[in-house]
Amino acid sequence: MDSGVQNCDTSNGYVHLQNPHLKTMTSDFLYHFNLGTATHDLPAMFGDVKFVVVGGSATRMGKFARYIHQELGLSESEEPKDLADTDRYGMFKAGPVLSVSHGMGMPSMSIMLNELLKLLYHARCSNVVMFRMGTSGGLGLEPGTVVISKAAVDACFRPRYTQIVLGQEISRPTELDQGLVDELLHVAAQEEGLTAVAGNTMCANGFYEEQGRLDGAFCDYTEQDKLQYLQKGRDAGVRNLEMESLCFAALCKKAGVKAGVVCVTLVDRLRGDQVTTPHDTLKEWELRPQKLLAKFISSRLGIK
Amino acid sequence: MDSGVQNCDTSNGYVHLQNPHLKTMTSDFLYHFNLGTATHDLPAMFGDVKFVVVGGSATRMGKFARYIHQELGLSESEEPKDLADTDRYGMFKAGPVLSVSHGMGMPSMSIMLNELLKLLYHARCSNVVMFRMGTSGGLGLEPGTVVISKAAVDACFRPRYTQIVLGQEISRPTELDQGLVDELLHVAAQEEGLTAVAGNTMCANGFYEEQGRLDGAFCDYTEQDKLQYLQKGRDAGVRNLEMESLCFAALCKKAGVKAGVVCVTLVDRLRGDQVTTPHDTLKEWELRPQKLLAKFISSRLGIK
Repeated sequence: MDSGVQNCDTSNGYVHLQNPHLKTMTSDFLYHFNLGTATHDLPAMFGDVKFVVVGGSATRMGKFARYIHQELGLSESEEPKDLADTDRYGMFKAGPVLSVSHGMGMPSMSIMLNELLKLLYHARCSNVVMFRMGTSGGLGLEPGTVVISKAAVDACFRPRYTQIVLGQEISRPTELDQGLVDELLHVAAQEEGLTAVAGNTMCANGFYEEQGRLDGAFCDYTEQDKLQYLQKGRDAGVRNLEMESLCFAALCKKAGVKAGVVCVTLVDRLRGDQVTTPHDTLKEWELRPQKLLAKFISSRLGIK
Repeated sequence: MDSGVQNCDTSNGYVHLQNPHLKTMTSDFLYHFNLGTATHDLPAMFGDVKFVVVGGSATRMGKFARYIHQELGLSESEEPKDLADTDRYGMFKAGPVLSVSHGMGMPSMSIMLNELLKLLYHARCSNVVMFRMGTSGGLGLEPGTVVISKAAVDACFRPRYTQIVLGQEISRPTELDQGLVDELLHVAAQEEGLTAVAGNTMCANGFYEEQGRLDGAFCDYTEQDKLQYLQKGRDAGVRNLEMESLCFAALCKKAGVKAGVVCVTLVDRLRGDQVTTPHDTLKEWELRPQKLLAKFISSRLGIK
């Protein structure tokens, strides 16, 4: 069935979509990637994918794909190109690794992830592991520290992703795979110059007020209010703050896909709001999650 | 005070920031634009801005700036360049018009808008009018119709933007400027081949489940449930659905800036979910909000 939509397959190892309507569709067009079952041979293009790494910017995800391509010793003729014919997201493939951008914030992540999970499903990928990598604000950590998330939590520090569906609130759990957390910590421990900790990751719907910053366009609270809130988060196990992990954790979990979140911290929010570290240092820090995931993937593939 | 932060100015015509902490900062770095008061002369760069148009993709906003540049008869040597040295957002200036991308979803809009409002404030811009333009799903409208928003409403059809700040819910009103709605309708009526209507715009935190689509990775409801929900929206005055207007309306209103939202509809959601219109037709439709806003701006400037 080249151009049709496969039935939902819940056998072990495959992506579990939970949508009976997909069975009734003669084809499926993934609008924000400009890829579809009627126009592309998705199993041929993506069937061998075993690792998916997602991150904010398309430029960064292109660079990551080229880096992985080199680390895995793939041939020069296969240099990763952007496979999504759209300016919404970038999508690059290096052997069994797919590198995809998700923009900023959970709604942007949600669109990408719905279409990516359907893509993996249509392509009949099996035993896929997914990672989000990115940057974040830290809580009580030396900037440059990498946080491996045990769970994503909301702005009230609860491990759940709340959506409004047909006007009703629904919540989905957001704990991450603990086996992956341990494996990532193990790989990180072997990397010189890399400090990694496991902890909860708070996911907010904004960068300024929603993360208790004092330097946005609006602020109705005091520095003391802010520090009380952040300390409450730290006491609840939060080690960093970002804007996508909650949606990522919930939807991967619902699809039965093992998932991990690896973010470097650029600032200690208990000490300040603005990111003032020199550009070159930031660039080096931003590479840390990439290096960790490259080592993880190489190790899983038995390359080194 | 070149590198310092101005005091909040609430006099008529200026952007009203409501953040006492800004007064205590010696400089302000707009991280996601890579622009700052210490490194850039923002009044010289942006002081003459009178119209700000924001939209999803950086590519589209660059094209819009070049189109406006031509429509306003600006000199060729001033061809708009990307002023934001980052791959997060694109920012282009054509005379008094600033064209900025916001990515997809309210969190991405929120980051951009916090920094943009601070930029307009630091640059001492006055009497600025702001627009969001984009694409949307329609409710009971012929695809290609342009909707001029009377108010942005949430997924329960309420005109309010809800944020979690320091763990507490706060809500802000999201009605848009009715004078602008009338003026836009008037300009649209003079455009041949353009159908524009005024109505409410529902703003969701996702594209699939959150907009009642049946074709996402997950769906726990029936087509009848979906149609009941969308019809309820239509009965409440909703004419289109998108993902950014609520945040845009609320934050512009709070900053005392007149704002309008102009989106073209690509599909009638009462008749289907997938966007299957041919690419060239979609491209023509996507230009409609651009043309309407170009006419509005030209008319305000007395150019034609």
